[in-house]
Amino acid sequence: MTFDELDEFTVEVPSWAYGNSGTRFKVFAAPGVPRDPYEKVADAAQVHRHTGLAPRVSLHIPWDRVDDYAALAAYAKEQGVRIGAINSNLFQDDDYKLGSLAHADPAVRAKAVAHHRECLDVMRATGSKDLKIWLPDGTNYAGQDSLRDRQDRLADSLQRIYTAMDPDQRLLLEYKFFEPYFYAMDIPDWGTSLLHCLALGERAQVVLDTGHHAPGTNIEFIVMQLLRQDRLGAFDFNSRFYADDDLIVGSADPFQLFRIMVEIVSVGAHRPASRVNFMLDQCHNIEEKIPGQIRSVLNVEQALAKALLVDTAALSAAQRSGDVLGAHGLLMDAFETDVRGPLADRREERGLPRDPVAAFAASGYAATAAATRVGGRQAGWGA
Amino acid sequence: MTFDELDEFTVEVPSWAYGNSGTRFKVFAAPGVPRDPYEKVADAAQVHRHTGLAPRVSLHIPWDRVDDYAALAAYAKEQGVRIGAINSNLFQDDDYKLGSLAHADPAVRAKAVAHHRECLDVMRATGSKDLKIWLPDGTNYAGQDSLRDRQDRLADSLQRIYTAMDPDQRLLLEYKFFEPYFYAMDIPDWGTSLLHCLALGERAQVVLDTGHHAPGTNIEFIVMQLLRQDRLGAFDFNSRFYADDDLIVGSADPFQLFRIMVEIVSVGAHRPASRVNFMLDQCHNIEEKIPGQIRSVLNVEQALAKALLVDTAALSAAQRSGDVLGAHGLLMDAFETDVRGPLADRREERGLPRDPVAAFAASGYAATAAATRVGGRQAGWGA
Amino acid sequence: MTFDELDEFTVEVPSWAYGNSGTRFKVFAAPGVPRDPYEKVADAAQVHRHTGLAPRVSLHIPWDRVDDYAALAAYAKEQGVRIGAINSNLFQDDDYKLGSLAHADPAVRAKAVAHHRECLDVMRATGSKDLKIWLPDGTNYAGQDSLRDRQDRLADSLQRIYTAMDPDQRLLLEYKFFEPYFYAMDIPDWGTSLLHCLALGERAQVVLDTGHHAPGTNIEFIVMQLLRQDRLGAFDFNSRFYADDDLIVGSADPFQLFRIMVEIVSVGAHRPASRVNFMLDQCHNIEEKIPGQIRSVLNVEQALAKALLVDTAALSAAQRSGDVLGAHGLLMDAFETDVRGPLADRREERGLPRDPVAAFAASGYAATAAATRVGGRQAGWGA
Amino acid sequence: MTFDELDEFTVEVPSWAYGNSGTRFKVFAAPGVPRDPYEKVADAAQVHRHTGLAPRVSLHIPWDRVDDYAALAAYAKEQGVRIGAINSNLFQDDDYKLGSLAHADPAVRAKAVAHHRECLDVMRATGSKDLKIWLPDGTNYAGQDSLRDRQDRLADSLQRIYTAMDPDQRLLLEYKFFEPYFYAMDIPDWGTSLLHCLALGERAQVVLDTGHHAPGTNIEFIVMQLLRQDRLGAFDFNSRFYADDDLIVGSADPFQLFRIMVEIVSVGAHRPASRVNFMLDQCHNIEEKIPGQIRSVLNVEQALAKALLVDTAALSAAQRSGDVLGAHGLLMDAFETDVRGPLADRREERGLPRDPVAAFAASGYAATAAATRVGGRQAGWGA
Repeated sequence: MTFDELDEFTVEVPSWAYGNSGTRFKVFAAPGVPRDPYEKVADAAQVHRHTGLAPRVSLHIPWDRVDDYAALAAYAKEQGVRIGAINSNLFQDDDYKLGSLAHADPAVRAKAVAHHRECLDVMRATGSKDLKIWLPDGTNYAGQDSLRDRQDRLADSLQRIYTAMDPDQRLLLEYKFFEPYFYAMDIPDWGTSLLHCLALGERAQVVLDTGHHAPGTNIEFIVMQLLRQDRLGAFDFNSRFYADDDLIVGSADPFQLFRIMVEIVSVGAHRPASRVNFMLDQCHNIEEKIPGQIRSVLNVEQALAKALLVDTAALSAAQRSGDVLGAHGLLMDAFETDVRGPLADRREERGLPRDPVAAFAASGYAATAAATRVGGRQAGWGA
Repeated sequence: MTFDELDEFTVEVPSWAYGNSGTRFKVFAAPGVPRDPYEKVADAAQVHRHTGLAPRVSLHIPWDRVDDYAALAAYAKEQGVRIGAINSNLFQDDDYKLGSLAHADPAVRAKAVAHHRECLDVMRATGSKDLKIWLPDGTNYAGQDSLRDRQDRLADSLQRIYTAMDPDQRLLLEYKFFEPYFYAMDIPDWGTSLLHCLALGERAQVVLDTGHHAPGTNIEFIVMQLLRQDRLGAFDFNSRFYADDDLIVGSADPFQLFRIMVEIVSVGAHRPASRVNFMLDQCHNIEEKIPGQIRSVLNVEQALAKALLVDTAALSAAQRSGDVLGAHGLLMDAFETDVRGPLADRREERGLPRDPVAAFAASGYAATAAATRVGGRQAGWGA
Repeated sequence: MTFDELDEFTVEVPSWAYGNSGTRFKVFAAPGVPRDPYEKVADAAQVHRHTGLAPRVSLHIPWDRVDDYAALAAYAKEQGVRIGAINSNLFQDDDYKLGSLAHADPAVRAKAVAHHRECLDVMRATGSKDLKIWLPDGTNYAGQDSLRDRQDRLADSLQRIYTAMDPDQRLLLEYKFFEPYFYAMDIPDWGTSLLHCLALGERAQVVLDTGHHAPGTNIEFIVMQLLRQDRLGAFDFNSRFYADDDLIVGSADPFQLFRIMVEIVSVGAHRPASRVNFMLDQCHNIEEKIPGQIRSVLNVEQALAKALLVDTAALSAAQRSGDVLGAHGLLMDAFETDVRGPLADRREERGLPRDPVAAFAASGYAATAAATRVGGRQAGWGA
Repeated sequence: MTFDELDEFTVEVPSWAYGNSGTRFKVFAAPGVPRDPYEKVADAAQVHRHTGLAPRVSLHIPWDRVDDYAALAAYAKEQGVRIGAINSNLFQDDDYKLGSLAHADPAVRAKAVAHHRECLDVMRATGSKDLKIWLPDGTNYAGQDSLRDRQDRLADSLQRIYTAMDPDQRLLLEYKFFEPYFYAMDIPDWGTSLLHCLALGERAQVVLDTGHHAPGTNIEFIVMQLLRQDRLGAFDFNSRFYADDDLIVGSADPFQLFRIMVEIVSVGAHRPASRVNFMLDQCHNIEEKIPGQIRSVLNVEQALAKALLVDTAALSAAQRSGDVLGAHGLLMDAFETDVRGPLADRREERGLPRDPVAAFAASGYAATAAATRVGGRQAGWGA
């Protein structure tokens, strides 16, 4: 188990994971939570420092609005990381009550499109190449709006954004089964997202958030299908039992995460050349946030490591010969292998801690943050 | 279609439906939203004024905390309504991050129990007889806590509350499939709620919230089963497509609401003597709140009216003879009947508007509220 | 309520609905069940005779194999109906244990492709223009086969079938969430079906079976999306609470059926020019089969009639103005309207029975069938 | 890792797993499949021979009806196993079309009760102590029958069976979410099963089939709750992605199986004294049956072995201190441990093959069975 294939693999972490988050019922605050984008980047850098796996941090606009994005990017570089995807926000403006890019009112749509122009500027200032759009638009009641008109308006708005992009910028379009609307989402599934991407052009690709599917959906099938269409742009990793639970990736169904990684490995999409961006999109409502992120990136790496262990020649032979149990058994052999030791060895060889969670705890960073980040307003989903 | 059976039927409305609500992503504010419990009661009274169906309003403590509950009750009476169930809150105190009545720390549990003593006092002051407990406790990660220890602690806490109750007070215990925790809820299903009620005693009964079940759950079966055990204390009505969507009751699946009402009618539980409390528990995130409530109580009445139309003698005969299509057809005949006209006639006979939504719109109440409720802080789930 | 728009609307019935069906646990036989395709067609003709709504009957090959298809078509014409879509069977040959069009073995795929050439010949002999393919292929265990290779093989097989088609023949490709395989289906969702259709050409279109979706899926959204892509070829109507339950359409969620029909009507797809084929695909495991089919086609007509009642001008105005409750209320007004009387009037005007179920019962057809269809082997899913 | 706690642990295998099974679409036959109960017992004995884990085989009446049950029991003993639970069949008699123990017709109920008297006699003849009842009763259409009357009739029928039991016999009552009926099952959930058991008496206990729940149900919570009530009588193990998929246990979600076993171990219920009967209830539709069973019992043992590795002292301490990530991490540490080697060592020490699947393949048993079991009728769900 040498895992050379892991050398170039990275996971992108979201700035908002370091701020407070919660449910509609309550957001619990925690000591030491960042109060601005700089502090979020500093926290994110801790994850990379202890794991060597997370060299990029996604920003969310307007939550991470700063006066000088170049300065923020420079600060990130100092901290050992760089700015990743830029996420737009289409759900927190009062004008977006009934939608944004799909809103019936052209003025609201124009505002939402303009917001993406701002995001493209942030990308230019920070060196980011990925514009990630999660469209929260939808309706709560049958009849509330025309499902079809909303698609047409959405297509038009997306076209305007796509047109404003530079040739080296990508549009990553996410889908979600439900929430924040409960009758119909305007991009509820991968099929809808893909159709919009196909209409836009090659630089539009689909984002697969592992928490955004109907119960029972076979996610690795979708991964395969999007890869087969050359349209899998990125993952938003997290765990789900019921809804968009946003728990730590790999904590609810580690076997599913492994199966997803098996599909990834089968076409070499874990390598940077694939341009698949492996991102986290999670909440840490009740657990510590930086350790939660450390555990998350380690879980992704662990699943990938196991996927790399699959004996693909034997598996293909078993599959071709119709040996159902044999083929399944070969997959399970990889999954059952304990890779924690070899991965710790690998870290050690690279000057990283064998146990990143313990190393972070020992670093005293959390205590310092709690002691020094006093006053101001803790960051959350609203900022 | 005379519907005499509807005469005594009432629906209880929740004070929090008139405040702002939303999702974890955004709470959209609206003009004229109440700023205190008095204004909420005034809004609730509008629903009764125009429908004659909603003479009680549930309170939520601490959201509806006032200095003088007797004064609030008197105000309600002036407005033509009275105080219904008192709802406790176990999810918004920082101490409740890892649970309340089931928390590992006895001090937190004691605090949560004490909060219910306060609620019992509010009941004494307002004349309310129903203490409604929704336990939001749960865990987000496997291993986070002992599922069994949590049950034992919960049983102990509930016993302390039950002991503190007066002989004419009821404890109504709600269950919920998921949210705000995502790995395990401590009262996830009717079975768990019922077991706790059985352990407590006769004055403990189950609350069935129509939005709190797994996908595909046959809710009318649970209604039947709880009625068969004499333990159906109350409904929290709302509509659900996916999760605890809290949409207007009857808006997502009117046939399901009808089927529930058929079970109710089959044992006469729509009559006050059954002591089943038919309550709403909804959000009006994007639609107007008072009209949303009016539509909701009308939807419940409409479903009940249709249930009363079932030809029970013919139905029983068809059922006994194994006439599958005949029996089903008799049920559908009741459902397909348009009862809007007869119900409007009924209202007119009673001096109520034929179209309560239109009557409210014509009343100018909303405009007055928007104009006069200026300044202060709009009520929401946090207050 | 004149409902002229209903004049040209028809529903296609499946030959297999008149045979025995059941679950994996038991197929209950019934007296009078057809023993060959001629008797199935005769039964199907009863549905049309009493409703005027069902002038076509789908065949399933090999279940409906006869020596002389032209003779069968002529017999149908005598009975007042004609042959509709031809359904292939990819699940009942021993060779198909691990798949058919997606099987790893080219010989099995060739056999499955050849079967469709037979079906195309049946179409030429019967005048049918629709080849309907439901691909039951899938896998039961992770690792059992390569999900991607299966897509590639499937695409190749479909291409061979498409190439063999005449210019006036359509390929209708169905998707299904799960069953008869339980880990991954090879066409699990509308997105996969559509991608294959897009790759094939304009005469390949998607079949939407209302029972083939994940829990909570918004089906009318998919209807809208497929219509927007001009790729909705046909419905397989039935009802579902949990899985592919195959209950009578409209019996589980009549409001959903109405919402589907609203999307259909919104673009005029209920008219024959749309070429959307409205078919039933149901089982009648415990209820009488012909009355079950009669009820089904009436349920579809009823939902369409209500959809035609929507005040579209008022609805559009309410939608454009953001009047959430108003727009929803307009939709509900149409749904709440009782159209049974006007539809009975319509039938009477056309010389059809007001109550088709009662008329069939009075006709004595069932008793005659039970008395005369003695000996032989009753038809079922196996023949 | 010594795993002494595994010494007494056993898994019971079902006779029907060795016969043919399938879906409603097709049952694929396989060479060498048993043709009678003796051959089934012989096959079951192979599982025990190679794993040492499966010393009991459940029978299903009438599928396993023989003239001389004592002779069958003696044959089992010769083969190194014994007869386990006796399963009744309430779904394959034509009289049971609309139900059995809950049927409207007292004559049908009496017949179903009488069938259980026969099963009790089989128990007396074979030494079995467990009567397992899965009630397939339910309805397909709303209104088809009275949900409540069915409960009352069921309670009466169960009482008659319970009364007929010997003092050392147990009644194990299973529940199921849906199938073979699709509107309402008469025992759809653990709550309903438990209520009936409580009404019957101490020797009535609940069977938890891991495939019989709504999507998203937390099964380990139910395990905990039933153990807490001292009413968990048995498991029916299998895997599920969507419905009652009946796949190999541990093949769909090995982490869930581990979590279930953690609850078991936490109260010592893996020890025989608990009287929890760990049974398989699976189909092997497309894979080899005996190897499928071997893999299954190994999967259960593996999950239990991992559960025994949990550092319970450290876990309790982390739980009590509110260390969410620490507690979760301790659980995951046990799950991530590769126990395949130590379990193979254990087998070797006991004179069992390190790799039971390979050992069975090498034994030539399958080839012999295929060669000698010629003629006759292969066993399936119908016999």
